[in-house]
Amino acid sequence: MNKYAIYHTPDSEYAYPLDENTLRLVLKTARGERFKEVSVLWNNKYDFAGRRNFTQMQHVCSDALHDYYVCDLSSADARFAYVFLLTLPNDEEYYFSEEGVTSEYDFKHGYYTFFQYPFINAADIITPVPWARDAVVYQIFVDRFRRGDTEKDDTYITQAWEQVPGAKDFAGGDLKGIAEKLDTIKEMGFNALYLTPIFRSPSNHKYNVTDYHAVDPMFGSDEDLRGLLAAAHKCGVRVILDAVFNHCDVSHAFFRDVMEKGRSSKYYDWFIVHGETPVKYGDRACNYEIFADCPYMPKWNTSNPNVREYLIRIALAYLSRGVDGLRLDVADEVSHTFWRELRAAVKEKYPETLLIGEVWHENGMYLGGDEFDGVMNYKLQKIFADYFANGTLSAGEAADKINRVVMRHRRQTNGMMLNFLDNHDTPRFLRLCGENESLLRAALVALYFSVGMPCVLYGTELPLTGDGDPDCRRTYDWAAKPRHALFLRELARTRTLLPDGEFYAGAEGGVLTLVRENETERAAAYFGRAKTEGEVIFEFENVKIVKEKK
Amino acid sequence: MNKYAIYHTPDSEYAYPLDENTLRLVLKTARGERFKEVSVLWNNKYDFAGRRNFTQMQHVCSDALHDYYVCDLSSADARFAYVFLLTLPNDEEYYFSEEGVTSEYDFKHGYYTFFQYPFINAADIITPVPWARDAVVYQIFVDRFRRGDTEKDDTYITQAWEQVPGAKDFAGGDLKGIAEKLDTIKEMGFNALYLTPIFRSPSNHKYNVTDYHAVDPMFGSDEDLRGLLAAAHKCGVRVILDAVFNHCDVSHAFFRDVMEKGRSSKYYDWFIVHGETPVKYGDRACNYEIFADCPYMPKWNTSNPNVREYLIRIALAYLSRGVDGLRLDVADEVSHTFWRELRAAVKEKYPETLLIGEVWHENGMYLGGDEFDGVMNYKLQKIFADYFANGTLSAGEAADKINRVVMRHRRQTNGMMLNFLDNHDTPRFLRLCGENESLLRAALVALYFSVGMPCVLYGTELPLTGDGDPDCRRTYDWAAKPRHALFLRELARTRTLLPDGEFYAGAEGGVLTLVRENETERAAAYFGRAKTEGEVIFEFENVKIVKEKK
Repeated sequence: MNKYAIYHTPDSEYAYPLDENTLRLVLKTARGERFKEVSVLWNNKYDFAGRRNFTQMQHVCSDALHDYYVCDLSSADARFAYVFLLTLPNDEEYYFSEEGVTSEYDFKHGYYTFFQYPFINAADIITPVPWARDAVVYQIFVDRFRRGDTEKDDTYITQAWEQVPGAKDFAGGDLKGIAEKLDTIKEMGFNALYLTPIFRSPSNHKYNVTDYHAVDPMFGSDEDLRGLLAAAHKCGVRVILDAVFNHCDVSHAFFRDVMEKGRSSKYYDWFIVHGETPVKYGDRACNYEIFADCPYMPKWNTSNPNVREYLIRIALAYLSRGVDGLRLDVADEVSHTFWRELRAAVKEKYPETLLIGEVWHENGMYLGGDEFDGVMNYKLQKIFADYFANGTLSAGEAADKINRVVMRHRRQTNGMMLNFLDNHDTPRFLRLCGENESLLRAALVALYFSVGMPCVLYGTELPLTGDGDPDCRRTYDWAAKPRHALFLRELARTRTLLPDGEFYAGAEGGVLTLVRENETERAAAYFGRAKTEGEVIFEFENVKIVKEKK
Repeated sequence: MNKYAIYHTPDSEYAYPLDENTLRLVLKTARGERFKEVSVLWNNKYDFAGRRNFTQMQHVCSDALHDYYVCDLSSADARFAYVFLLTLPNDEEYYFSEEGVTSEYDFKHGYYTFFQYPFINAADIITPVPWARDAVVYQIFVDRFRRGDTEKDDTYITQAWEQVPGAKDFAGGDLKGIAEKLDTIKEMGFNALYLTPIFRSPSNHKYNVTDYHAVDPMFGSDEDLRGLLAAAHKCGVRVILDAVFNHCDVSHAFFRDVMEKGRSSKYYDWFIVHGETPVKYGDRACNYEIFADCPYMPKWNTSNPNVREYLIRIALAYLSRGVDGLRLDVADEVSHTFWRELRAAVKEKYPETLLIGEVWHENGMYLGGDEFDGVMNYKLQKIFADYFANGTLSAGEAADKINRVVMRHRRQTNGMMLNFLDNHDTPRFLRLCGENESLLRAALVALYFSVGMPCVLYGTELPLTGDGDPDCRRTYDWAAKPRHALFLRELARTRTLLPDGEFYAGAEGGVLTLVRENETERAAAYFGRAKTEGEVIFEFENVKIVKEKK
């Protein structure tokens, strides 16, 4: 038996409560390791020495190196002690406890070595944001979607709407434009909007904020935001705003104060300045901490409690206006301390707020229940890009990687990941597909079938194409017929038919297969010609979604 | 190469900041895997695609299955991206990134797959409690140490001091008794006290609290506590109190209110009652959540914010009296939410407070920097018991296990673990040793040599012996000459000579060897006859501590 491959750690995505009396356990073993049985011996931790329950685990999926076994333990007494029992085909038995893999186990002294989930405290259970399960999100880069306000001062606009914008161009899109098109968006099956930043900022993307409270006049007024929120909520559409708490713009009043007064400014410690006063050396370097290599974006010092309080008040102000969720920009460069405080403050007052962090890399440290509900699922996006567009993964490799991503999170968390094919920071997925719209459509099926919230970039329905930033931020073509609008609508409808439950991937007969199932139903999406059973609920070229009762 | 064994995860004990510009990296590989070189390619995450620094990692120690490699990366720009480079003896090279082990690595698209520590925020660095590094702790079970107050109402006392107490006996020890013996304790080299609970409670151990604010009259008065704290601080002795926030006694006013009024009590939700009113079924069962199988210890509902606020105020009240640290009882059954809030409140006002959780099992989830500073190191205690007393481990096995425990925590955290051979909940270590005092002494050397705070149970110096609770809680024999007092004093003195740095174990020539070293010095403790180099700074039978310059 491959002892190196066997892994479990309690109070993590390998052992977590589903509710106050149910503990989910996950065990990882070497892929293909042949067991006669994988099971758990468990009981209330105070009675474990005397007597144990026995529960078999089920193999649910595999990644490149590992098999995953899962079971749920239910007990009125939710103070769990447990040890895994691994039975080989020759009936040899091994125990797996905090001591590792052993051929014998001393139950009498188990209180030293059993795995435990000592007590399921309600406060520690990850609770899904109720509207996330059915959310289908439309992402809008505001300057490029639609100009609704024809009377605003438009001297800032640098290009005709029809032109392809450069990095620093302004096209004139605004909140009124979005409000005008809510019906169209809703008709495509979307019930949530994610807007890139809308508050006062000198740039077209507005990720460098000058004033966190005032809607940028290019995009409209506070009144326009109120109007958009009211109209959206009236038709059942949630609104997620982009919140940029890692950095601001050099023109923010507090940073200006530091530039003016240096160390004697009351805001000196609100930033991280290595010297008496902030100094810029050319376009890409300076003596203060910044975002990326952009001296115009000074980083907030979220190790300073006053900064945390200031930014948290801003978040609460957004939510008090009726905003439903926040997408937290550059979340990984901000202190955990800040996110924990922000979450506590937000969820206390607005428990249904969705908090999504921008994290491209390992993200488990943000998803323990004390920071974000979910993150932008870059890990899944890369697999979709490599499988559907780049063609660098086989079906089996794609399935392995999808399972690895899914098994890295608690079930509740998977339902709150923001899944996407592309966004304002990546090339358009269509471009990755070499403009092949069939590939784009197939990937959209995978996106909508996956557990987590599908998030579609504005104009995908046309479809818009383009390379990475700024080319992925082209203007919407309102003269064109949106060729994929009905396709998206149909996918959203199909999504409502899928069972809410487990999600994993496979590759039977070389065909990538995604599965969602619960105790009563099973749905599968096949990306290729496959022998399928059950009712076909969606079909497109050789992509098929089927559903059956169990 | 054994891919199953290779492990690293960022923002954990495998990658954490030592200061604002230094990142420590740890990589785990299969034990004995032969590499020509293990190294890291790294840079500022925004420049990683273009150019990388190269840093070699050092093999520092091994456990049963794994080798551990370590390096520290220092950079003014503390936004780290990194990929490991594993070079085999035949010069074959492998990369290890978030994608796993691969023979090629696409640096251009590294932003998808490199490991990262995105920014070292000061607020996320684990900061040692300054006095912990040199703390040597004496644990006192208050009822059994010494009676100092001869005038108190002593009708509660059930036994003569000289008798061996039963589970429910009261012997008469109190705070005045401790204050009287501070000098004696200090002379043995201790500079900190850890007292089991002292607040009002009907039991001798007082882990079931009736009133969190009043010192129990059996143990003295608030004035006595003030006196003890003042006297201790005057002679440089810190005081750690036991704080019991998992549960209280049924006689606590709030629980009494619930018993009386049931669901209409304002404290109904402060406990977890499964029914209209709390009901006891016999001695060991009831319809409300409790500690262990003790209906007289109802569990606080720390999922209720009001309970959290109440208990946190109690902790702050203790600290406002001058208490230096809290040992948090049954910490693992209390909600993480509570501990996070408690830590934030405590450290904001009293940043040098030491927070130690009672956790017998996997404890990483409490030691990420947002809950406890350290835990009671049961994992280390078990190794010491199995090696020195039970004799069930070879030197090599003991070394492997010690390294596993040490490598499971960040360096700063290891310095704040409360290490011990025995305590009020375990048999006396001497009893485990079959009353062999040489074995006890050898284990004490290991305890004092280890990184972390040695904590010695009162009477070890006599020595006291006894089985588990209640027999380990015998009364102190003030007539006896404490045979090991000088030994302890000498160990405490020797401890001050040890380099503050890395700590690991080995077993050269079958002799258990503990090592502490930093850049300039190295000290080693040998538990058996061994060829040693350097100056002998402590010697006892065949146990020896040597020290040398590097």
